[in-house]
Formats: sequence, C-alpha cells, structure tokens
Amino acid sequence: MDGLLKFVPRPTGVGDVFQLLRDGRPRTRADLAAVTGHARSTIGQRIDLLLSSGLVTPTGEATSTGGRPPATFAFAPGSRIVLAVDLGAVHAQLAVTDLAGEVLVEQSARITISDGPDTVLDWVAEAGRELLARSGRPSEDLVGVGVGVPGPVEHATGRPWIPPIMPGWDGADIAGRLRRAFRVPVLVDNDVNLMALGEHSAVYPQVEHLLFVKVATGIGAGIVSDGGLRRGAQGAAGDLGHMAVPGGETVPCTCGNTGCLEALASGGAIVLALRHEGLDVDTSAGVVELVRAGDATAIRLVRQAGRDLGAVLAGCVSLLNPSIIVIGGIVAQAGEHLLAGIREVVYQRSLPLATQHLRIVTTHTQGRAAVLGASRMVADHVLAPAAIDALFEGVGA
Amino acid sequence: MDGLLKFVPRPTGVGDVFQLLRDGRPRTRADLAAVTGHARSTIGQRIDLLLSSGLVTPTGEATSTGGRPPATFAFAPGSRIVLAVDLGAVHAQLAVTDLAGEVLVEQSARITISDGPDTVLDWVAEAGRELLARSGRPSEDLVGVGVGVPGPVEHATGRPWIPPIMPGWDGADIAGRLRRAFRVPVLVDNDVNLMALGEHSAVYPQVEHLLFVKVATGIGAGIVSDGGLRRGAQGAAGDLGHMAVPGGETVPCTCGNTGCLEALASGGAIVLALRHEGLDVDTSAGVVELVRAGDATAIRLVRQAGRDLGAVLAGCVSLLNPSIIVIGGIVAQAGEHLLAGIREVVYQRSLPLATQHLRIVTTHTQGRAAVLGASRMVADHVLAPAAIDALFEGVGA
Repeated sequence: MDGLLKFVPRPTGVGDVFQLLRDGRPRTRADLAAVTGHARSTIGQRIDLLLSSGLVTPTGEATSTGGRPPATFAFAPGSRIVLAVDLGAVHAQLAVTDLAGEVLVEQSARITISDGPDTVLDWVAEAGRELLARSGRPSEDLVGVGVGVPGPVEHATGRPWIPPIMPGWDGADIAGRLRRAFRVPVLVDNDVNLMALGEHSAVYPQVEHLLFVKVATGIGAGIVSDGGLRRGAQGAAGDLGHMAVPGGETVPCTCGNTGCLEALASGGAIVLALRHEGLDVDTSAGVVELVRAGDATAIRLVRQAGRDLGAVLAGCVSLLNPSIIVIGGIVAQAGEHLLAGIREVVYQRSLPLATQHLRIVTTHTQGRAAVLGASRMVADHVLAPAAIDALFEGVGA
Repeated sequence: MDGLLKFVPRPTGVGDVFQLLRDGRPRTRADLAAVTGHARSTIGQRIDLLLSSGLVTPTGEATSTGGRPPATFAFAPGSRIVLAVDLGAVHAQLAVTDLAGEVLVEQSARITISDGPDTVLDWVAEAGRELLARSGRPSEDLVGVGVGVPGPVEHATGRPWIPPIMPGWDGADIAGRLRRAFRVPVLVDNDVNLMALGEHSAVYPQVEHLLFVKVATGIGAGIVSDGGLRRGAQGAAGDLGHMAVPGGETVPCTCGNTGCLEALASGGAIVLALRHEGLDVDTSAGVVELVRAGDATAIRLVRQAGRDLGAVLAGCVSLLNPSIIVIGGIVAQAGEHLLAGIREVVYQRSLPLATQHLRIVTTHTQGRAAVLGASRMVADHVLAPAAIDALFEGVGA
C-alpha cells in the first residue's frame, strides 16, 4: 500500500454493519450480506464482534424457506447508558437513559446558573454520580454525557460563547471538567438545539423539517432540516430571540438593539407588560397561571406575544419551509392562546406553498425535550460508524 | 434469504467504490481495498466495470515500495455531459458541461417566460439539441438535463407551484416534456436554489454554510447548510422576497401583504423609486448603469435598498449562522454601494457570535451560477451510489 492513505484509519467494517441494525429491526446474516454486498463469512465475523459487545443481541429466528431457520439479530439499545443533563437559568434536569432515549431514572433540581461553572459543574458531577448509582447500572455501561446549557455554544469547542444569562461561563471547559468526573466523552450544546433534537427523535422521527421554538425567559430555536440538526457555522443557528419584530422598533432590548423578539414576546416581556397593567406577577410560570385562571389581561397579552412570535416565525417559514413548528418552553403552557396568535400572523404573512401543509403545535415531550436531545446527541456520537469501528480496532474483523 | 429485504435492490457495490474516486484524486486498487475493507479481488472487479464505462480512467502509476508499481485510477468527469438550462423572466442561458461543471459550449438568448411552457419548452428542446450538436459529443454521452426556473418548484414533483412571474406554468410537467425530447433524466428546481448550488460547488466547495441571495426583478435565496442545499419541506425554502422589512410596513407588495423585502429592495422597487424622483429608468440594468455613472440619487437609493436587504439578512444570519452571504442577480452589479448598505445593518443587528467570521460578497460566477448549479444537480443525481449501482445491475460485480 502506498502513502496516499496513510492518515486514513483502516476501518474494521463493523460500524457499517451496525448502522444497518440501528433501526432496531431484527435481521439475519443473509439480510446483512445482501444489503452490504459483503460475503456471509465477513458478516458473520462482524456480527460475532457486535454480539460479544452486547450492542447487538439475538432476537430469534426468521421464517425458514426450507432447512434450519436463520437466526436474527437486532440493536440492543439497553446495553449501554447515557447521562443527560439540561442546565437552565434556575433549574437542572438530569436523566440516565439507554441508547434509544428510554429514561431509566431522572431528577430535577433548583440551581443557580450564575453561581458559575465551578459550583454548578461540581454539583452536576455529584448529582450525576448519585443518579447513575440509582440506575443500578455498572459504571462501565456509561458511554457518554450530554449537556445542554441556556446560551450560545461554539460548536467546534463545545464552550459557551459570551452567554448573556450565564455570567462566568464564557469559554468554560464544561466537557473537560465532566470528562474528568465521568471518564467518558462529554458533548455540550445549546439547550434549544437539544430540545429540537429531542422532540424530533422522540415524537417526529419521520419529519424531515422541524423548527423547535422555546419561549421562556428568553426565546430561541433549534432547526432540523433534511432530518439533521443544523447548527450553522459557529453553532449559533436558531437565535430567534434577537430577530427584529416588524412594527416593534420602539421597544428596547437588553442586547442594545430595539424591537427584538425577546423584548416583545418572551416570558420576561409578558411579565413586565402585565406588571405595567397593575398585575402582581414575577415569573413566566405566574403568567401561565393567570392565563389558566382566565385572566383577560394575561390572555390578551399572551395572544399579542403570540402575534409577535408569529411575525418572526412567518419569516422563518419563508426561509426554512418546515413542515412543523413545535412551541416549547414554559410560556408554551399557556397553550392555545399563544398558538392562536402565532397561527394568525404566520398564515397571514407566509406564502401559500410554505403553509399549505404546515402544522404549529406545542411540545409533546413533557419538559424532557432537552434531556432526550442530550441523550440522542451522545448516542449519535458513540454509535457513528467510525466510533463503532474504533471500538473494535485491532480485533481483526 | 428471508422476505425481510425483498424490496431492497441488491447493490452491485460499484457505486460505493466510485464515490471514493469522485473527488478526482488518483488511487490504487490497494487504496480502495483499504478504505472499503473489501477484498482486492472485489475491488478489481468493480474498477474493471468503472473503467469499461469510461467513468473512471487510468491515471498512471503510484510510487512503488518495491516490485511492480501499482496502477492508479481516477474519476473522468469529461466522460459524460449534462445540458444545463437557466430560464429567467426574459432571458435563457444554456450550457453543455461535463460532470465536474466544466462548460464546453454555452448560449444566451432572449425569451419571454410568459409565452408559457409549450412555446418556451419547444424552444429549449430545439436550442438544446443545437447546442449539443455544437459540443461535438455523441448523444449517448448526455446523462441528464437540469433546468432552473424563476419561481417556486414543488420539490417532490419538480413542477412550478403558482409561480407569480410565470403565467401558465403552474403545475407544468417540465421534466416530462424535456425527457421526451432528450430521453434522459430531467431535474427541475428554482433558479435561486441552483445559483446557491452553483456558486457553492464552483467557488466555495469547502464552505459548509452559505446563503446565496439573488437581487433582481424579484428577490430570493438559496441555502447551503452543512454542505448541502436545503430546500425545506415543499422546496420553498429561501423565499426571502416576502419576508417583512422592519420599518417598511407601509409599502404595499404585489403579494397582497405590505412591507415585503421585494417591495422595498428589488430591482423593480428601485426603478419605481428612481422614477418617482424624476429619473428616466425602466430596468434593473438601467439602475446599475446609473450607479456606475455616479448618479447620486441612484447611489443613495441602492444603498437604502442594501439597508432594507440587510434588515432581513440580519434575521437570516441569526437563524442560519452562515459563514458567507453571496449577493448575485443583476442588482448585485451595483457592487459596493449595495454591499455597504447590507453590511451596515447586518453587523448592527446580528449577534457577535454569528458575525465574527461572516463574509458578505458579490457572486464570482459571472452570471453562470444557475447553469453551474443545474449541472451539479444532475451530476449529483446520476453519480449517486444507487444510480451507479443501477448502471451495472445484472453485470455481476
């Protein structure tokens, strides 16, 4: 062999066989030989390696066409576990899941993200260890940790990048710190990207184009296009919060500009507007309570926030042409009043080709979108063909 | 083999070997065996098939490490040709290219798209045949026809969908008609999608996130994200023209809404504004001439159009986080005056993480972006692994 390829690792081929099984459907050696074009003996060796690792398990026998019925095999998502962590401004959610995003144990806690990375990540390490112990699984089953944070994350480095509501976290080495605690790969992303990934994989795996919008203290979005999460060049894609709302130009935003969506339609903005009208409310949760109690002022302001969201989302629909927009975050719990405002403007402003099949709905993941996304991000990473190949490097498949 | 896989065609494996060669770099049989994990004999058979088809060609010998130096092979993009067609409102551009987008012969003509599909596609068939004859290549070298049209195209069907400036074309079976004329696959897309694809493949193949914006009679965009063209659920992604310009709410648009980007910043809008100020100008080309002649009013209005474009593009930057925005279309020939307005607002309105490495430039494809994109779309289609496999179906690789 000449030098042309000296930097390309020799693949073991196990990863490609594994990909075919990842959908969970049982297959025979002959099925896999047919799809890959590999010899039966090659497939046999690779299946044996996957069986020995536990990632693939025997599932029984296929119908015979005569002779001994062939054995079938399938992906065993329960064979390994992931620690999924969602850090918010004032809360954290942790879950231990299997490789298919099944939650084994979970925990919520109040934290203060502004305590900074030292305090918060020490707590994550401790709480994570307790939760792993509670799952009853041996530590060698853990294949990775996924972390969502409420701010922009530079994708290449996995570090927060001047995150507005995370003082002290700019450039923090979250992955390095947790890798030392758990001794497995740690992946970090913006929480809204993970929500999009979690909602997509858990609820809409067949939808190719999905936009997930989180409406809470801030506003952000995660974009799934052609079935994949799109993070953009620096991992900053989906930053809806500071897009300009047409007609909202006079409202100042904390970012220094005026008319940003977050300044008009976030939970924080609705709280301010309600207080301005004399209501005693402090949090987005309080806004949701007022709406549920039927307060006319709260309903009117939430609906107007929906219209402002709709004005920006109409632009997103023109630009991205999604088939579904999922609204999550605490303000989404105000339900139909928010959705009605959004729909009103999106259907008025967007072009018919883009809206003819468009659905606008609230989240179906019961507040778990981000941990499910963190779990999925880790599973995709550790189960990628090259990662599986590397697992068996030197075993001689 | 059981029934599980009966709808999956048995791959010949030639397509996968070909993909490794598509970058044009010469490789030996041993290189390909190493990367694929296939036996040397299997690779040998597949290379022989590719050589016999002409898609791959011998390129010499690699450096020997002792013994007879191994032969090298590479993709031969000149072995087949594509007919690329860009239809505009009042002009058409045709090119015969090879599989790497090299233009062999080309032709421009004035047409009237509103003459309808019968007249225009008959002309395309005739002009295409003449151009193919002029290329001197035998008709069996033609592998496909790519067509760009100035309106939305429903991606699943390849048919225009209520295209505003193409009266008579709604639902027209462009592909079927030209397939009967040329007896090869015909692919149809919106012209701006093809411009994005053409500019990306010809000028920025290494850039993962690119937004191409056409500013002409209308305004539209094509999105490349993670290296691929993103068309959205119905193929309507990138429809910038009817996104709302913050502050422009009073200006009526032909779509029935107000404040659309096209109503403020298109070539047509600038023409109207110049006429309103007493200048005698009819076309976008006329605007560009005035700017080049140093007319202060034209320069001022083009710069303001740039600001309006910038207001919408700032939102696109927040949402998509591209590394480069390429401005094309006739109005882009107004050059720095337009760019200055765009940059002014984009850098003011977008968040720092998204703009720190952002470039905003004019097109470098000299008006050929759409035909280059049409060529690339066809090449990607006919050279996809499954298509190459199908080519050798039953040959027994």
